[in-house]
Amino acid sequence: LERILIPGTNGVSKEIADSISRELLLKVCKPIYKVFPDGESYIRIPCDVKNKEAIVVQSFIQPQDKSFFEAILIGDALREGGASNSILIVPYMAYARQDKVFLEGEPISIRVIMETLRMLYKRLFVVEIHKEESLKYFGEGAVNISPYTYMARQLGLESSNVAVLSPDIGALNRAKTLSQFLKCSYDYLVKRRDKITGGITMEPKELDVNNKDIVIVDDIISTGGTIASASSILKKYGARHIHVLVAHAIMLGEAIDKLRKSGIDEIYAANTLPKKDGIKYVDIGPLIADYLSSYS
Amino acid sequence: LERILIPGTNGVSKEIADSISRELLLKVCKPIYKVFPDGESYIRIPCDVKNKEAIVVQSFIQPQDKSFFEAILIGDALREGGASNSILIVPYMAYARQDKVFLEGEPISIRVIMETLRMLYKRLFVVEIHKEESLKYFGEGAVNISPYTYMARQLGLESSNVAVLSPDIGALNRAKTLSQFLKCSYDYLVKRRDKITGGITMEPKELDVNNKDIVIVDDIISTGGTIASASSILKKYGARHIHVLVAHAIMLGEAIDKLRKSGIDEIYAANTLPKKDGIKYVDIGPLIADYLSSYS
Repeated sequence: LERILIPGTNGVSKEIADSISRELLLKVCKPIYKVFPDGESYIRIPCDVKNKEAIVVQSFIQPQDKSFFEAILIGDALREGGASNSILIVPYMAYARQDKVFLEGEPISIRVIMETLRMLYKRLFVVEIHKEESLKYFGEGAVNISPYTYMARQLGLESSNVAVLSPDIGALNRAKTLSQFLKCSYDYLVKRRDKITGGITMEPKELDVNNKDIVIVDDIISTGGTIASASSILKKYGARHIHVLVAHAIMLGEAIDKLRKSGIDEIYAANTLPKKDGIKYVDIGPLIADYLSSYS
Repeated sequence: LERILIPGTNGVSKEIADSISRELLLKVCKPIYKVFPDGESYIRIPCDVKNKEAIVVQSFIQPQDKSFFEAILIGDALREGGASNSILIVPYMAYARQDKVFLEGEPISIRVIMETLRMLYKRLFVVEIHKEESLKYFGEGAVNISPYTYMARQLGLESSNVAVLSPDIGALNRAKTLSQFLKCSYDYLVKRRDKITGGITMEPKELDVNNKDIVIVDDIISTGGTIASASSILKKYGARHIHVLVAHAIMLGEAIDKLRKSGIDEIYAANTLPKKDGIKYVDIGPLIADYLSSYS
């Protein structure tokens, strides 16, 4: 089955698509794309996709609703054009954090995204979807790509005295997997409410961080508040260097400054979102290419 | 079946929902709505919808993709909340003009909107969807609401010497229906390319507009270019007053000025889009309420 790679409508998607095409030597078909003066998106796939396998890369960056909608427009164009298989790669999946009803009356936002995508795509690859269970709404053919080990290898994070920390117990598996690669210990941070001040403090569950190089691993950083607090505390406990390894660096407002000031030495992120100064990015394209190869 | 009315996330939708609720004495449930700092929408329906018929009003105004996505988030919240029936009213349907493949490789944008909405809503009412055939993608239960006769009645457009014009032959039925209500003649404008200058001219197919009050009827005005050209020509042919009756007044940039300068006396539009100075709006709520009544 002939494969054709279609970069999405934003710079992030184009960069990752370029990287995938270099790895797999895929033919690239750039969509014709514009936004009409009234705000509607126009997309056209100017290539013959009939009986081909089309691989679309579209990161759901801000404006998320537009990025998502453009992915389904491309999906419809592929269906219309007679593609025999269509695969969507979503480096950053928006709305993944609204994955359950936290308060009665809420939607499960990630569910409607998944249900819509499955009308138009046969397979879905997402880089770190926050909760892997959300992929069940797509059904068969959805795969989560965990980037941490790959990133750590690319960055050469192995060191003699390193330990991995998860910001909470819920994400402990990420820390565990990464620690297995780094052959080091791992732990998570316990949040406690100070009975006198009422403030939230946190500390490693058991790990002694004194004189250790700490890698905090997380899926998404938005405001950076939790990680900055964690870093300050780890510094007090004697941590040597603190690195943050994050899949998706949203970094709202002054987040990066805040993290730097809290004592973090380096922030590493996958290139799934628009780039910001003060972050070292790891190109996730080759890892996605590996997944695509092993699938075909 | 108890009915509950849910206004959408923008001012246009709230105004129309208010109007419907006054007509039908429906209980209104205002969603809790915010946009997170990263751009994702948050919606919660803070009412018990279990075993009720929920009627949602959401106009797909700019940003269209967000308005659309919020409609499906509300639909998901209603499904999650156990609503026994859900009806979506879309005063302005975005992407209705991409209703076929004009150039190979294009999507049928309105189709993916319809297919997505039908996952979450049992019935759909749209005010003037450009091409009624597009509703087939929703399947059973989709209704187009033609607003022109209602608007003409509200505005008292009957006059002794009026005639109705469609800007092109494709939309002639709109002009015909309105002319039947106004008990007057109707026609359409023929575009011709001037063989010497190469410019486009247009003129009424047969109608003598001299000394007549003309109502130009159209579904959407974006730039106003066509209608302004038509108006200038009708003035040359001796038209007395020229009124424009339009369902959806997008009116990009200087459109309204352009129309005024071309000799148009009054622009009448339904209140399906954000309001602009220089347009007289007709509240479409009571007409939608009539449709909802006749359905129940």
